[in-house]
Amino acid sequence: MKTKQLAIAVLFFASAALGHAQQTKPLVSPDVLPDGRVTFRLNAPKADEVVLTGEFLDGPKTFARDADGVWSVTVGPIAPEIYHYNFTIDGVRTIDPSNPQLKTGSTPSTIASVLEIKHPSPAFYDAQPVPHGEIRTHWYPSKSLGTVRRLTVYTPPGYDKNQSARYPVLYLFHGANADENAWYRLGRANLILDNLLAAGAIKPFIVVMPFGYGVTPGGAQADNTAKFSKDLLDDVIPYIDGSYRTISDRTNRAIVGLSMGGGQALNIGLNNVDRFSYVGGFSAAIGNAASFPKTYAKITGNEGQVNSKLKLLWIGCGTEDSLFGASKSFSEWLTAANIKHTFRETGGAHTWMVWRRYLHEVAPLLFK
Amino acid sequence: MKTKQLAIAVLFFASAALGHAQQTKPLVSPDVLPDGRVTFRLNAPKADEVVLTGEFLDGPKTFARDADGVWSVTVGPIAPEIYHYNFTIDGVRTIDPSNPQLKTGSTPSTIASVLEIKHPSPAFYDAQPVPHGEIRTHWYPSKSLGTVRRLTVYTPPGYDKNQSARYPVLYLFHGANADENAWYRLGRANLILDNLLAAGAIKPFIVVMPFGYGVTPGGAQADNTAKFSKDLLDDVIPYIDGSYRTISDRTNRAIVGLSMGGGQALNIGLNNVDRFSYVGGFSAAIGNAASFPKTYAKITGNEGQVNSKLKLLWIGCGTEDSLFGASKSFSEWLTAANIKHTFRETGGAHTWMVWRRYLHEVAPLLFK
Repeated sequence: MKTKQLAIAVLFFASAALGHAQQTKPLVSPDVLPDGRVTFRLNAPKADEVVLTGEFLDGPKTFARDADGVWSVTVGPIAPEIYHYNFTIDGVRTIDPSNPQLKTGSTPSTIASVLEIKHPSPAFYDAQPVPHGEIRTHWYPSKSLGTVRRLTVYTPPGYDKNQSARYPVLYLFHGANADENAWYRLGRANLILDNLLAAGAIKPFIVVMPFGYGVTPGGAQADNTAKFSKDLLDDVIPYIDGSYRTISDRTNRAIVGLSMGGGQALNIGLNNVDRFSYVGGFSAAIGNAASFPKTYAKITGNEGQVNSKLKLLWIGCGTEDSLFGASKSFSEWLTAANIKHTFRETGGAHTWMVWRRYLHEVAPLLFK
Repeated sequence: MKTKQLAIAVLFFASAALGHAQQTKPLVSPDVLPDGRVTFRLNAPKADEVVLTGEFLDGPKTFARDADGVWSVTVGPIAPEIYHYNFTIDGVRTIDPSNPQLKTGSTPSTIASVLEIKHPSPAFYDAQPVPHGEIRTHWYPSKSLGTVRRLTVYTPPGYDKNQSARYPVLYLFHGANADENAWYRLGRANLILDNLLAAGAIKPFIVVMPFGYGVTPGGAQADNTAKFSKDLLDDVIPYIDGSYRTISDRTNRAIVGLSMGGGQALNIGLNNVDRFSYVGGFSAAIGNAASFPKTYAKITGNEGQVNSKLKLLWIGCGTEDSLFGASKSFSEWLTAANIKHTFRETGGAHTWMVWRRYLHEVAPLLFK
């Protein structure tokens, strides 16, 4: 508080001395206007060019500078949603320095600012006055990887109170450049499930969100799925079944992921149908058709067993996603191999807007 | 993964066309050199000036530009620690865009990049191969504030297994511009306590880290302590005692905070000695000597009761902190009022380096 008071005092005297009283007002950015347009601002008297990029734009927008060196641009109206955006200041892609809401992850390429435009009534991902589950962060020993790693878990409302209840488990994976917090911080997985549970649309289950890298994020990725898979099967699942009141049979275990994590979920799930009954890939990074026979070697010739064991194989992708073709090819390959599955073609690109909706759509299909 | 491959491909073709093959290498920043010096880098061909500020510097350092527009500066050697720093690019204070480790909070003024220089052997705040507690995030209904708010809780190792055990509780508050995650993400409170517990230096206890604002962060703060106090006493504490296996008497309840939260902990703790037995202020924002008689009205005339009820009143501040004088004045005022307390004068400024060490020092004094 004192630091802030000091900062305000310094600003006050500085601007009084310079005769720029308007600089004492804090800059508001993003500024959501009553008509749904949004103004972005940046105080940068020395900059030559400021550009806005964001998931709510068709392309970059250039800011205009006023006489005091404050840059601004107004866009929209923008539909209610949660979006990510960046400022590029003299060629350097960075954040909106006036906005405390940040998207972070395991590599710098993911860093962005967050613009949330609230719906007139609560959205399916908003915190509502319903019973809430918890997010638990564990530091667990991974023998496979020789390190202590973080792991995020969602427990449904009432988990601590109902000491005799046991629960199914969804293993839920993030994408490249993200981390074990992405599904709840960006994906709002906990709030989506709290709301579905309050509406009676799902039964309560635990969600396990591991860190999806077995190798250094952003480095060479060749061994990543193999290493991640070993950590998941040999360390994470036994740790969870030993720490939580799970139902640890295959009919109560689901595996779902997005992008890189979608590829991991499909790879691990379909090659281990003795351990998982529900498998899902959201906008999955799954390579190309030539790789499918090798990657999914355990499926070929075992169609009957796969079909009888899997209660759900769900593949979804947005048509504006550069990975759409891969998902479509994979669905066609599965169809040719007589593997039952759902291929869900939706609008949307490679964004959390799509993945929040997919979780909302798939969660009610689990553990039926 | 695909996005990354695309980005690499785009970079490759772009640089091949321009003949700048070196630009395909990702920029490393911060780059910790073997001798403990650190190089910071920024690719900004269009920028006119780049400046580094950081907790490891005496003052700002200016970057130098190379012929390709890559700016760099080398500083140090820097002692092993966790530091925060910023880049100022053409007058705009922002982050190091090559570093995924960010400090975030409830206002933009707190946004910074994180530089961690590892100790040769693990530090008291490092994740070590010892039993680990959990961090739990709750969404709880605050009737006092009419909203659903987040709350962070640390449970010690074994909490879930030992269903008959009950635990003391430390209420631990963050500073201005921070949030309910600060004490574990920046303060490493969980790892500090895990390590102390493994060493037998403390007994296991629960730590509750609420969001310290009852008003909008960064706005007018006049009612903040009153509103936060009401939320804490009427909502948070009953919620915790109803959700966790706490020992809910005053001898098993501590209240400690830093900066703004230090002022809150001293104010709430000393005015409610019927509810707290251990009170601590780290670099506390506590106003000036003229305000003490009014703020701590319940102490005056009740010295005997306060001294008999409080098992610890601990006030610590670094001599390089602008709040040092306030802590010293408060200690003198307490001494004049015959209130027993510890005044701990240390080196250091208003930083997490100091607060991590204070928690490490104070935790063993609690619940004895």
